[in-house]
Amino acid sequence: MKNQKKYLIKFIPGDRSIKVSPHYNLRQAILDCGIHIDSSCGGVGTCGRCVVRIKEGKVKTKDTKLIPPARKEKGYVLSCLSKVESNLTVEIPRQRKEKAKIIESGLSEIKSKKYADISRGKMSRVHIKPWVKKAFIVVEKPSLSYGTSDLFRLKKSIKENLGIKNCTVPIHVIRKLPRALREKDWEVTVTIDRENGTLIDIEPGKTGDECYGLAIDIGTTSLIIYLVDLRNGEIIDIESDYNPQIKFGEDIINRIIYASKKGGLEKLREVVVDSINNLIWKLLLNSRVDTNDIVSIMIAGNSTMMHLFYGVSPRYIREEPYVTVANKFPCSTAGEVGIKHIKNAYIYSIQGVASYLGGDITSGILATGMFNKKELSLFLDLGTNGELVVGNSEWMIGASCSAGPAFEGGGVKCGIRAVDSAIEKVTIDQQTYKCQVEVIGGGKPAGICGSGLIDVIGEMYLKGVIDRKGRFNRDIGNKYLKCEDDDCRYILVDKKESINGKEIYISEADIDNLIRAKAAIYAGIKTLLEEVDLSVYDLKKIYIAGGLGRHLNIRNAIVIGMLPDIDIEKYFFLGNTSVVGAYLSLLSQDKYKQTSKIARHITYIELSVNMKFMDRYVAGLFLPYTDMKDFPSVEESLYLAGKK
Amino acid sequence: MKNQKKYLIKFIPGDRSIKVSPHYNLRQAILDCGIHIDSSCGGVGTCGRCVVRIKEGKVKTKDTKLIPPARKEKGYVLSCLSKVESNLTVEIPRQRKEKAKIIESGLSEIKSKKYADISRGKMSRVHIKPWVKKAFIVVEKPSLSYGTSDLFRLKKSIKENLGIKNCTVPIHVIRKLPRALREKDWEVTVTIDRENGTLIDIEPGKTGDECYGLAIDIGTTSLIIYLVDLRNGEIIDIESDYNPQIKFGEDIINRIIYASKKGGLEKLREVVVDSINNLIWKLLLNSRVDTNDIVSIMIAGNSTMMHLFYGVSPRYIREEPYVTVANKFPCSTAGEVGIKHIKNAYIYSIQGVASYLGGDITSGILATGMFNKKELSLFLDLGTNGELVVGNSEWMIGASCSAGPAFEGGGVKCGIRAVDSAIEKVTIDQQTYKCQVEVIGGGKPAGICGSGLIDVIGEMYLKGVIDRKGRFNRDIGNKYLKCEDDDCRYILVDKKESINGKEIYISEADIDNLIRAKAAIYAGIKTLLEEVDLSVYDLKKIYIAGGLGRHLNIRNAIVIGMLPDIDIEKYFFLGNTSVVGAYLSLLSQDKYKQTSKIARHITYIELSVNMKFMDRYVAGLFLPYTDMKDFPSVEESLYLAGKK
Repeated sequence: MKNQKKYLIKFIPGDRSIKVSPHYNLRQAILDCGIHIDSSCGGVGTCGRCVVRIKEGKVKTKDTKLIPPARKEKGYVLSCLSKVESNLTVEIPRQRKEKAKIIESGLSEIKSKKYADISRGKMSRVHIKPWVKKAFIVVEKPSLSYGTSDLFRLKKSIKENLGIKNCTVPIHVIRKLPRALREKDWEVTVTIDRENGTLIDIEPGKTGDECYGLAIDIGTTSLIIYLVDLRNGEIIDIESDYNPQIKFGEDIINRIIYASKKGGLEKLREVVVDSINNLIWKLLLNSRVDTNDIVSIMIAGNSTMMHLFYGVSPRYIREEPYVTVANKFPCSTAGEVGIKHIKNAYIYSIQGVASYLGGDITSGILATGMFNKKELSLFLDLGTNGELVVGNSEWMIGASCSAGPAFEGGGVKCGIRAVDSAIEKVTIDQQTYKCQVEVIGGGKPAGICGSGLIDVIGEMYLKGVIDRKGRFNRDIGNKYLKCEDDDCRYILVDKKESINGKEIYISEADIDNLIRAKAAIYAGIKTLLEEVDLSVYDLKKIYIAGGLGRHLNIRNAIVIGMLPDIDIEKYFFLGNTSVVGAYLSLLSQDKYKQTSKIARHITYIELSVNMKFMDRYVAGLFLPYTDMKDFPSVEESLYLAGKK
Repeated sequence: MKNQKKYLIKFIPGDRSIKVSPHYNLRQAILDCGIHIDSSCGGVGTCGRCVVRIKEGKVKTKDTKLIPPARKEKGYVLSCLSKVESNLTVEIPRQRKEKAKIIESGLSEIKSKKYADISRGKMSRVHIKPWVKKAFIVVEKPSLSYGTSDLFRLKKSIKENLGIKNCTVPIHVIRKLPRALREKDWEVTVTIDRENGTLIDIEPGKTGDECYGLAIDIGTTSLIIYLVDLRNGEIIDIESDYNPQIKFGEDIINRIIYASKKGGLEKLREVVVDSINNLIWKLLLNSRVDTNDIVSIMIAGNSTMMHLFYGVSPRYIREEPYVTVANKFPCSTAGEVGIKHIKNAYIYSIQGVASYLGGDITSGILATGMFNKKELSLFLDLGTNGELVVGNSEWMIGASCSAGPAFEGGGVKCGIRAVDSAIEKVTIDQQTYKCQVEVIGGGKPAGICGSGLIDVIGEMYLKGVIDRKGRFNRDIGNKYLKCEDDDCRYILVDKKESINGKEIYISEADIDNLIRAKAAIYAGIKTLLEEVDLSVYDLKKIYIAGGLGRHLNIRNAIVIGMLPDIDIEKYFFLGNTSVVGAYLSLLSQDKYKQTSKIARHITYIELSVNMKFMDRYVAGLFLPYTDMKDFPSVEESLYLAGKK
């Protein structure tokens, strides 16, 4: 057994490596090493996404048509079809990796800023008062006449210097005490978590006050982590990735179903925790921040994501009366929930409201600051689900409407997420009907993301390509509108212009999906407001959150009847507010406590059983709405354009 | 690798088994399986203690003279010299096991009694109010109009039914929630630890209120565990064993030295935790108590033992100014410190006073109840160290005097611990000088334990076998006093009468050791009392604790000058008070809180640097003392016996 041969595989870029037995599957080795590799087919050689390049060494690989001969010669193989036959150096293609990186709206703006202040929306300002901090203290020496225990003298010094009474010192820290205290003559640096009054670490001497935290958002579609300097709020680095649970179910309902199968819950927990570990590892590696200096983790996510992360069955979220097991999960050590590298840091989560109004929304509300303003605001998070909250400092009500994944690219043939190569902006020339597109990251497009889709529908409607029902006006007789029998599609990008040689188009079925999605959102807004006898005209501010793209064209969202037809100046597009709320909570104990207050403050309205909601949903299956009176500015635009 | 052959070894009695590779060492297999096997030579085939009997199967064993041919034929082998060559059934000899079982003074009396009430000493009575209890509650059902989380409704019900506000529910319990709540229609049994406000467990339906706890004393020499029914205080069963750390050092100082070596601390932690796991396993097996019903653990021990159990370096206990890392270790889950089987139960420890006045003494003081009486009492624990505390409800002072292991059989040629076959009582016939002995467990004796040794010295002195300096009166010319050159020994038991064919005797060197030990104890008592301007005549009660034997003859302890010469009616011999204090603390939160009060209440006096103590120690190197005025009743006895 001892002498069994092992091969060393080095992965580039980066410096990870792993030893495996001969004939070991290469894709598995990559996964074992904690490297994310795309493989939507699950490793059976059909999706072609797990391609890697063998730079040194030998693999035995099955032949596949998914890799062109020229690339084969250069050493490209599908890792899932390859077995390790010698020591290897394997290149994980950089291009793919970057493509997989999710572009977070507004992230570039807040990166390296002290305060979150995204786009036009003024984010809640935060007085930086992180509850975990490092402090240098001197502990009294013992003597024959003062023979108290190390622990007693340490606690005494902490109380005198930091004002923290009788803090908890866990066993693993007590084990470090005798050496840490004596190594630098009773001078130590302590790391204390004020929230739960616990000493996280002790180090000999004056180590400086470097203290970092992680703000994590676990979205149904994507994960994002901020590495934050807790001393000044600086965001050192950001990492993000797809939520690896996607392969077990695209949306929440399918994940809950998967979690109910034998071993499913544990699998879903495992992959998301692994992925988070992977992102943390990348952040540590790139930032050169010391593992020991990461002292606190704040996590936000919708209720199902939080259940899965903590390994708690989400089954009853889906079954009437739709309740969570917990809206807030208890503080625990990172190690207890499987976070590696920084396992002694404490992990906190943001309290949710209900099954379909989770901690991501509470966190978003915190980010907007609307909970302590007198003016009436609407918060709208457009993710895989659409969640909305209306209110002010006095009251709040919230609801969720299953808009479906259309605005994240799901259920739309050429729809993709807001990643590199996604079309995020579209205008249509009134004369030629040709589309002008803007692509995330520049270059050729691969598909169209949420903000692009809203633009397309809006533009097509305004320019007369489609009618109020979302049907193509075949009589425009244009080369971009291709019809075969009953099937029509509108070509946004010709196959020559796209990244993969396929045309990017939109069909009537796609339009139907998008109309259903926008109808659900608008019906949600109307219903929620009428629950409290208010109308959209009472709204002073509307905050839009979600991963639609970097630049949501609000006007087009109004044109299609997704957002209320009110003064466009009232709209603020904020991107991922869940992670921003987690970031703020990480920086300030007061903010964190506010999230629980917000969660308790919001009254949840169940729309799925609300008849008024259903009526409005049906009324919304027209562009912009059955009753044009709801959208006077759209009517005016159409009139001016001669379409009405 | 998969196909490598493994052999199954079954051990009897009990039902443990283990699979090992061919040629595996049998003793190692026994240890791997968590079974205690004596082997003072460390497994090199010289001590002969690890003998076992092969009932079925084949081993390859080296020849040894330590097993007589007749026994070899019956299948007896030394496990350390045997390799596994087939599936086996191995008998661990029962006789040896029982011999190894430490006889705890007074245990038989308290077993199956509600209250600890040992010997003549009235133990502190306890109002049974265990802080961990099971309770049956009904949790409100959720509905569409009451869609709160399971956790919220559970906490609400706990608050309403049990008066516990906002209890902590750890992740592992939250994971059980959804199923537990729904399985029996929202009726559940919860196990709650009031001390730290934590929900330990939740089970569906009405499971009954069975709740058990463990009271553990980790002594330098022995471990003892009570399995206690928390509902009524009944002691269900008791298990005890030697502290396996003995093989790494007989006394505290040698263990601290071993712990300072590379890997030593972890080794010492490991063996004691293993041994405790083993004892818990036995208790579970014999009592048929369900693992899930053990909900709380209370642990007492001297400072060094506690450091080693928690894996904390005891190094500075031995180095001036002799301080502990901690006098009280934080509450943790059993799992965190390596306790198996019941890893979610919380483990609490009893606070100590100083390096050489640990939680075992605090626990003992609790057991006596002297801390809430106005009368002046002395508490004396005679273990490997001698610890003493003087005081009442107003004040207390305590000290430790290194008496050495003489009273536990150490440093005395024929000395053994108070186990089966130990001589515990001795009287000497004035005419014939023949010894009359009483043996623990009946049968032939193997050696002499603490109480027996005190009797021997006392009797020899009173009957004129030895003089005031502990020298033999060679002129009595008796067959029991054998002299060769300068070397004399007094024969207690002839070789024909002993269990192993060797004579049991006492030499002048042995007597010297015992005199030094008793001198240290008496000097400690005198010095401590004079620190507060009191004398032995002010004492109203003297509590003696320790593992000397079941029946300490107080009169003889006075005769040799170990204990003050005061009214014998004031003495109470209590046995192991450390475990009794832990038992009381386990049953009552109030009692547990009292232990911390007691620990803070005691002023520790360092005797090792006290000159008066040294003077008195030297004065005590005579029988009973240099100045006979301290022992008037002994002087009278000698006078009446015509010895003076």
